[in-house]
Amino acid sequence: MTAPESDRGNAFAVGPGTRPEMHAALVSAIRSVGGALVPIERAEVLIWDDPGAAEVFGDYLAGGPGVRWVQLPWAGIEAFLPHLDHEHIWTSGKDVYSRPVAEWIVAALLTAFRDFHEFARARSWPPQSGHNLLGSSLTVLGAGGITRALLELLEPWGCHVTVVRRSSEPLAGAEATLSTDRLHEAVADADAVVVALALTDDTRGIVDAGVLDAMRPDAWLVNVARGGHVVSPDLVEALRSGSIAGAFLDVTDPEPLPDDHPLWALDNCVITPHVGNTPRMGLPLLAHRVATNARNWIDGRPLVGVVDVDTGY
Amino acid sequence: MTAPESDRGNAFAVGPGTRPEMHAALVSAIRSVGGALVPIERAEVLIWDDPGAAEVFGDYLAGGPGVRWVQLPWAGIEAFLPHLDHEHIWTSGKDVYSRPVAEWIVAALLTAFRDFHEFARARSWPPQSGHNLLGSSLTVLGAGGITRALLELLEPWGCHVTVVRRSSEPLAGAEATLSTDRLHEAVADADAVVVALALTDDTRGIVDAGVLDAMRPDAWLVNVARGGHVVSPDLVEALRSGSIAGAFLDVTDPEPLPDDHPLWALDNCVITPHVGNTPRMGLPLLAHRVATNARNWIDGRPLVGVVDVDTGY
Repeated sequence: MTAPESDRGNAFAVGPGTRPEMHAALVSAIRSVGGALVPIERAEVLIWDDPGAAEVFGDYLAGGPGVRWVQLPWAGIEAFLPHLDHEHIWTSGKDVYSRPVAEWIVAALLTAFRDFHEFARARSWPPQSGHNLLGSSLTVLGAGGITRALLELLEPWGCHVTVVRRSSEPLAGAEATLSTDRLHEAVADADAVVVALALTDDTRGIVDAGVLDAMRPDAWLVNVARGGHVVSPDLVEALRSGSIAGAFLDVTDPEPLPDDHPLWALDNCVITPHVGNTPRMGLPLLAHRVATNARNWIDGRPLVGVVDVDTGY
Repeated sequence: MTAPESDRGNAFAVGPGTRPEMHAALVSAIRSVGGALVPIERAEVLIWDDPGAAEVFGDYLAGGPGVRWVQLPWAGIEAFLPHLDHEHIWTSGKDVYSRPVAEWIVAALLTAFRDFHEFARARSWPPQSGHNLLGSSLTVLGAGGITRALLELLEPWGCHVTVVRRSSEPLAGAEATLSTDRLHEAVADADAVVVALALTDDTRGIVDAGVLDAMRPDAWLVNVARGGHVVSPDLVEALRSGSIAGAFLDVTDPEPLPDDHPLWALDNCVITPHVGNTPRMGLPLLAHRVATNARNWIDGRPLVGVVDVDTGY
């Protein structure tokens, strides 16, 4: 089967193939919508099937001079940023993984608020402690797919959610939406501050000593975005001094966090190994997204999850 | 102020007063609806303000020959069962604490499914693990206020919930409702089995080796009801052999669980110290219920949470 004589061809390469399970799932996704699988040399579309293989991406793409659209497999695409250009259409997995990641946030909030991290370590009957997520006040940094999914999951919980975003444009489901220049004000009353931002030059290190000092001493920091959003030494100091109650981190800087990092020794810090979304959770969701986009491509419809090359997400 | 000449009087005793914070909150609740506070000797209503003082209840009530209605403060009223009679109207705190307890269930499910109990114990970067609560299959034993509150909280999560109750009368929000004689069938496909029953002669020991054997090896048992619902030696055996994945217990038998109990040594058992609802969470809710009921009494309207003296809940 060759590419049809239309504006968009039906010629998909799925590579580099270094993750067999992901490769198989994405090949199936392309086939499920009638996509033709071809070598990269003849492909119009590259479905990249290994989020860990960014170092070979440039050479691989160079082997496909006819490629017009590249589908990247993950929501965070930092590793691929050097390759972004205006010669190709780029799509990422953004929003695909929003619900599992939003679920991770709720799990972190509940574990922290109800002291389950301490109960999990207990080897004798501990004193009662904990408070409710129900009706609590949350401040969320970021107004993307994860935040929207979080607001959906929490809808019956009666939480008071403040969203901080670049603009102050209101987000449905949030009680208040503040622009980033009011960040210290936005975190001051929260039971927890949740970081759910993309990592850009503007947001790197956004949670620093100033933000941590502005938080309540009984408030939790929850980071499910990227380790680089938080200034690690400032966080260690805040956790040691008790200027915040604790931190729940799915991402660290560096990652994986080395065994001798001081965060491991702090009882009020819980670290999960980047499991907001795991392959087990995410691969079926990604395969569904790829199938949808492949059909959109074949049918000449707009793609989902298009990356803004200038902002990098 | 004396009792009005109506069918129901306005004469409330709040006692025994052994828990000052609870006493103060319930006195405020009565005052907030215009209730008159009198000594037990002249009271028509007794608001019992210490769930731990059942041993002095009989003598106290005997001091109030005019008492017609007794409000008990807790949802589980086992300690007061010997005193129940048809001479008084009895109300309990049932359903008052449903939402905090339902929140505990969701917290337990998320912690268990996402392996947060293991991550909380880690002191170096662990392998990825965990699966979603989203879209999972849950079997809940009991169709009372806690189960209804749980179904409300989980509404956006797309879970498939089977409810087991005495009758097979359908419960709104559940995909299936089975009667107790089909318990083994009901637990067979669940990712988790949640015990949210009242403890009666019929339900004591309901989770035994047969039920545990019928569960999937990757399923969790979650008990937020009473320790007596689960046959402890059978549970220890199931956790040791891996015939179930784990157990999350807010209640134990005995309670508190002694330090040398084998459950403490099992990494796949998480025990929380009866915190489904704590005084911090529950007292405002109880005060609201007492105020509502006091107003209902004064106005001659039906009371909320009336105990069926014959079934004991």
